[in-house]
Amino acid sequence: MDANIINPFISSTMNVLTTMASVNPTAGKPTVKPDNKSWGVVTGIIGLASNKIRGTMILSFDEPSILKIVNNMLGENYTAINDEIVDAVGELTNMICGGVKKQLGDLGMLFDLATPLMLVGQGVELKSLTKAPIISIAFEIPEGKFVIEANLADFAK
Amino acid sequence: MDANIINPFISSTMNVLTTMASVNPTAGKPTVKPDNKSWGVVTGIIGLASNKIRGTMILSFDEPSILKIVNNMLGENYTAINDEIVDAVGELTNMICGGVKKQLGDLGMLFDLATPLMLVGQGVELKSLTKAPIISIAFEIPEGKFVIEANLADFAK
Repeated sequence: MDANIINPFISSTMNVLTTMASVNPTAGKPTVKPDNKSWGVVTGIIGLASNKIRGTMILSFDEPSILKIVNNMLGENYTAINDEIVDAVGELTNMICGGVKKQLGDLGMLFDLATPLMLVGQGVELKSLTKAPIISIAFEIPEGKFVIEANLADFAK
Repeated sequence: MDANIINPFISSTMNVLTTMASVNPTAGKPTVKPDNKSWGVVTGIIGLASNKIRGTMILSFDEPSILKIVNNMLGENYTAINDEIVDAVGELTNMICGGVKKQLGDLGMLFDLATPLMLVGQGVELKSLTKAPIISIAFEIPEGKFVIEANLADFAK
């Protein structure tokens, strides 16, 4: 994926987390995901689909980062992963991917979003049936880390 | 989901497995999925999306059933889950959901398919961010069992 496709994933993540959770993540360089495993302890998964585009966006958090983010979002003081946090990861995945959809739509890449799923567990084998590389972008806040993993195949090209 | 939406999931599963793997599954009654866990040892996941419909189709196999099905499909004699079996689950998920897309499309329910994902591991927490119930249909072949889990929300209604 070239930069004008990757950048919307970064800027939408920044926008949503700054607005919803008052955190200011820093983004690392995009790399190719090296394995087929869930990165963090809670992972949001959303499918992207149109008659020209198929893809997946994954958002995966370590425990300290998602506790900070959800506690900020909901005004809570959770100290362990619970159902509210798992659901919040689904909502964040949905909102961030909604922003990506808007930005890529402005570039003529049109698609809709499937229902978000949330996977609990680190290192779970999760493989994609695609030949397109999965791009991984690591984000950091003072409390912890999370990643976005994006895969998008454009059949029109 | 009413019967004319559920039936395409059953008939497409039958069609694909009979054609591709020469097995003749019997289908149980549709029920509401009772938990948020992966049912079998290998699970295919595919998102459904359009501007009116959001959903997920999940296909999850116990080990004996998927060994039989993939060995029949590929002319192999695998005795344990491997990468080829995991990929075959993704392909089966894609083909079955492609048949569902065709049949529901004929009823005016139009959507596209996201990239299939494959999850390895039984009892992994996997939750859907939806209020629509997840319908589970159990299938049986002499060697083992598998399930289809479908969730589909139509915003036009």
